[in-house]
Amino acid sequence: MKIRVAFQGERGAFSEQAARQLMGSRIEVIPCESFEKTFGSVVRGRAKVCIVPVENTLAGSIHKNLDLLLKHRFKIVGETNLRIEHHLVALRGTSWREIDRIISHPVALEQCQKFLRRHPHIKSEVAYDTAGSVKMIVEHGWHNTAAIAGPWAAQRFRCGILRKNIEDHHENYTRFWLLQKGSSKRRSIKGFPWSQRAGNKTSIVFSTKNVPGALFKCLSVFALRDIDLTRIESRPVIGRPFEYFFYVDFLGSITEERCQNALRHLGEVTDFLRVLGCYPRG
Amino acid sequence: MKIRVAFQGERGAFSEQAARQLMGSRIEVIPCESFEKTFGSVVRGRAKVCIVPVENTLAGSIHKNLDLLLKHRFKIVGETNLRIEHHLVALRGTSWREIDRIISHPVALEQCQKFLRRHPHIKSEVAYDTAGSVKMIVEHGWHNTAAIAGPWAAQRFRCGILRKNIEDHHENYTRFWLLQKGSSKRRSIKGFPWSQRAGNKTSIVFSTKNVPGALFKCLSVFALRDIDLTRIESRPVIGRPFEYFFYVDFLGSITEERCQNALRHLGEVTDFLRVLGCYPRG
Repeated sequence: MKIRVAFQGERGAFSEQAARQLMGSRIEVIPCESFEKTFGSVVRGRAKVCIVPVENTLAGSIHKNLDLLLKHRFKIVGETNLRIEHHLVALRGTSWREIDRIISHPVALEQCQKFLRRHPHIKSEVAYDTAGSVKMIVEHGWHNTAAIAGPWAAQRFRCGILRKNIEDHHENYTRFWLLQKGSSKRRSIKGFPWSQRAGNKTSIVFSTKNVPGALFKCLSVFALRDIDLTRIESRPVIGRPFEYFFYVDFLGSITEERCQNALRHLGEVTDFLRVLGCYPRG
Repeated sequence: MKIRVAFQGERGAFSEQAARQLMGSRIEVIPCESFEKTFGSVVRGRAKVCIVPVENTLAGSIHKNLDLLLKHRFKIVGETNLRIEHHLVALRGTSWREIDRIISHPVALEQCQKFLRRHPHIKSEVAYDTAGSVKMIVEHGWHNTAAIAGPWAAQRFRCGILRKNIEDHHENYTRFWLLQKGSSKRRSIKGFPWSQRAGNKTSIVFSTKNVPGALFKCLSVFALRDIDLTRIESRPVIGRPFEYFFYVDFLGSITEERCQNALRHLGEVTDFLRVLGCYPRG
């Protein structure tokens, strides 16, 4: 039986590819319009899991998904890093000279600024999604328009690639998290390698007490035990101006004693603490 | 002589109000289309300083401006916190019953979700700016359209306020930084109280060495000297995937010995360190 995976965007989106990279081909994908609806489809049981981008190495964190994760109390059960390549995609048979308009998601347009500036006669327009902009071109039969999208979107909609790798910076990766409805114990999904291996990376969120040196104390619980942090990210606490949640990832499993000690210690010096998941490093 | 201050948005924008709150009425404002152009107008000498939002207590950091600040090597010379109130603004004489469309900046629409959901017959549309959406209504004479904008935008364009404080959360503040072209010494601007007082808050940016416990060591230079951090924010380093710049604000002046010691100590444990400014706390 295939596992149903929800993601934001059209078929062929980077998120779909991330799901395939993480879970192989034995999945049934459920494309959703927005991140809210992606989470919603797991809440309502339409999908078993969802996959969402949480960080891009050029644009930074996708905060919306950190906020939704906290709100819905989902657990992180896997992660994967996907290389982001931006190609110029058009209807087959369209030639480069016909193109006078380029459409894509705002972040993709932003990441191809140098290419766009070299071709000032081509106007760029914002669309809701990279793969979705390819779909729009196909549906409308636009021969004057190209989309900035990944290779899978071109393949999915049987389009041609006019220019490859038009991104400003090639060192461009997006990190995705695979999420499941929360529970006190991690439920495993049978038959997938990522759920058979023990987790070796843990993500947590906490808020500090409002006293001097609070964050330093929080980080000391890891440093004292030689636990390596791979990321820290702050988000505002709604209704408490200039107070923050800190999202921290560290290398280690919640089954290890030193990590359990660190988390217990962290509980002493925080106002709020939640383990978001323990999963195999991507 | 009035000081020329650039900001993003139309006249009546929150940024203009922040400039007036910080610098009084003796300013000449230069509205700019984008944050890039706001920085650009200072680079080219059209404006002496610019004021930009850096953090909203609900939406989080405005990363674009952190990135632009780093790129242009501007100095922070002041800050102010502005309470954000969202009103429903329409042409004078328009009644609530005529409204079937609401336009505003995406963040303002997001912050008034509860109000919008209570009125599902009214469609909402994205505009480039809060004050700019008021301007559009006036220019087009739209009687069926209202804008979500601040009180100054209503005043500036001689519009009426149909509903007050339609924001979901009233504890909504935006922090603005006043920026000047960088120099090794802070140049003071005569006649403004904020430039006469000594700075008591300092903002820095650094990147850590890629070793375990690196961030902990960086924060220890402050904790060891009882220097209070008010904020920490991470941004990706372009071209070095999964490495970060950390933006830190602390209470203290670069003229104090303990802060100078902390910064020298920080230099030992970082790859890159820059002081973004020392200024009076907002």
